[in-house]
Amino acid sequence: MQTKYLALPGPTSVDNEVLKEMASEVFNHRGKEFSKILANLTAKTQQFLNTKNELHYLTASGTGAMECAIVNSFSKGDKVLALINGAFGQRYADIAKSYGLDVIEFYGKWGQSFDYDKLKETVENINDLAGITVIQGETSTGVVNDLKKISEIKNDKTLLIVDGISSIGAENIDIDGWGIDVVITGSQKVLALPPGLAIICLSKKALEAYRQSDLPKYYWDIGKYKKFTEIGQTPYTPAISLIKAAEKQIEKIANQGMDSEVKRHETIANMVREGIKALGLELFNEKGCRSNVVTPIKPPEGIKVSQIRKLMLDKYKVEVAGGQGKLKESVFRIGHLGNVDPLFVISVLTALEMSLIELGHNVKLGTAVTAAQKALCNSK
Amino acid sequence: MQTKYLALPGPTSVDNEVLKEMASEVFNHRGKEFSKILANLTAKTQQFLNTKNELHYLTASGTGAMECAIVNSFSKGDKVLALINGAFGQRYADIAKSYGLDVIEFYGKWGQSFDYDKLKETVENINDLAGITVIQGETSTGVVNDLKKISEIKNDKTLLIVDGISSIGAENIDIDGWGIDVVITGSQKVLALPPGLAIICLSKKALEAYRQSDLPKYYWDIGKYKKFTEIGQTPYTPAISLIKAAEKQIEKIANQGMDSEVKRHETIANMVREGIKALGLELFNEKGCRSNVVTPIKPPEGIKVSQIRKLMLDKYKVEVAGGQGKLKESVFRIGHLGNVDPLFVISVLTALEMSLIELGHNVKLGTAVTAAQKALCNSK
Repeated sequence: MQTKYLALPGPTSVDNEVLKEMASEVFNHRGKEFSKILANLTAKTQQFLNTKNELHYLTASGTGAMECAIVNSFSKGDKVLALINGAFGQRYADIAKSYGLDVIEFYGKWGQSFDYDKLKETVENINDLAGITVIQGETSTGVVNDLKKISEIKNDKTLLIVDGISSIGAENIDIDGWGIDVVITGSQKVLALPPGLAIICLSKKALEAYRQSDLPKYYWDIGKYKKFTEIGQTPYTPAISLIKAAEKQIEKIANQGMDSEVKRHETIANMVREGIKALGLELFNEKGCRSNVVTPIKPPEGIKVSQIRKLMLDKYKVEVAGGQGKLKESVFRIGHLGNVDPLFVISVLTALEMSLIELGHNVKLGTAVTAAQKALCNSK
Repeated sequence: MQTKYLALPGPTSVDNEVLKEMASEVFNHRGKEFSKILANLTAKTQQFLNTKNELHYLTASGTGAMECAIVNSFSKGDKVLALINGAFGQRYADIAKSYGLDVIEFYGKWGQSFDYDKLKETVENINDLAGITVIQGETSTGVVNDLKKISEIKNDKTLLIVDGISSIGAENIDIDGWGIDVVITGSQKVLALPPGLAIICLSKKALEAYRQSDLPKYYWDIGKYKKFTEIGQTPYTPAISLIKAAEKQIEKIANQGMDSEVKRHETIANMVREGIKALGLELFNEKGCRSNVVTPIKPPEGIKVSQIRKLMLDKYKVEVAGGQGKLKESVFRIGHLGNVDPLFVISVLTALEMSLIELGHNVKLGTAVTAAQKALCNSK
């Protein structure tokens, strides 16, 4: 394995204790032991997410949970407003369109927050708006969208469908307080588990909409999950090893609590941003909506994203991501989520600084690290 | 963990070497190392399945792959004949119906093979039959359906959609020779991996149908998998740990070859059946269509399925399954697939025999084991 420092916006590094659970012998998913684990895992996840809403684990990538959210919440021809300021916002719109929903696309600039006044006006001018889809943390641009504001803009009849795949646990969210009807997340992001599991969490209003929904569904049909939850099972054979690993990991972070996890990610993100700025580099995401989990950075003039990534990986075993979609060659992204700590940031910034110097960028040794250390001191 | 002998029709016991891979640190699914693993895994899986057809790994339970097969192969209103002689045959029909297909249900008795003459007549009397769905190995009843016969009955315009979830690797199949258009399987059965991965394998004819298909799909859209295969990736973050474990396991069984694996399962199944018959118990599945992976057994009069299962588990740590669906209380099932060997069968039969004797069944000690040993000798 070449990579030692996984600085991607997912998958993220997994604790050894949790990895050990992955290597447990598999066991009967229709037996008592599994029921106990699933019940405990579900309860701890609700505790961590501070929600009383119903919650299910799906054996799928995050995108599967996005589709699950759509097919259970809506009916043919429903008007859905898709908020798009990055690749994943577009994905929600595309999924909704593929099911024949009447999708209205509301665009924001990549790297920036939405124009919430314009959003308010737009929402007020649509009759019978069945739902709004939004990504809380746009991994493609490092932007966090303001769920509280959006929840205040929408009316009571409109379902708020949130993708929290790479934000849940690192950004503030008040699912019940803000009236978020459907929220999904994935295992391989802030929750610091291997990929393969997704979570969907539904309000009573979402479950009412489910009962009316006429979109075709089988594997994603939440009614089947509800029914099997009552007997402590999942409708189909789940990824047992991942469920067992999840119980270990979620119990740990639930004990720390969401607030403490968000604060930790905030501190880490601030260290990264201050280090980057000290290097004279520009952040792609605008102030005021910057993500706690991923920082997109424009490379210095004359140095290519691919050069930076290659040198950091080959020489320092640090793996950062390139840009996503249309940003592929114009930004690189440092992921700082899950099991990350201040010394991880110091390592990544050191690798970046030394790689940039080797590639001709003019900056003094220690610049990024010193700035990050200062940010750490100030956060205490 | 209470269970030591996992005698279920899935999940099955996983090799320690493969479990170790599950505990590997996660890594970038968009990097070179992953591409290499995915390419090797795909090639070895094609080698094991003796097919040149295109093949994709999905992060999902087997039921997800069933839905994937349907939504990619058909269009609204397509006529599909669903062959049903167990719970999973019904599931295929239900999935197809939920997508608005014109499903014609062709029933066989549970525990018996289909009336193939009647099937031939039925198929000949349907105009424009777009597809036939069939389960190769009905886990619910321990019946293997005759794919070769079905492939000879259908005409060239009809797609043959096979669920091989709990049969692939233990029953004969000639995907390319018999013209099977879509075949799916799951990781936690004969392949002896933890659950969480499914495989879909599509013929050229199936891919042509895909291009015409108008059923809504996103996560299951095979076109996206095709596109990403070209760059050595999956469209969405896959269950990386399972992919890594799969490479290890599939390489091993591919080297042994399908024929040898089928033969091994045949021998094991025969040992189980002979042991059961020697105990004076009746098999639920009829001669001529008996599964190599699971044996459904009627309990002796006066003894309940739940009593047998409880005693075997509590006293001998052997876990067998109850009946599925409408057979819940009337049969118990011994699973014998994946990493099983003759001594595993001896252990399971010993536990069964001693439990039955304790519950009042009149049989001499050693009866089942002796019969199974004889079957093993005769198979050589």
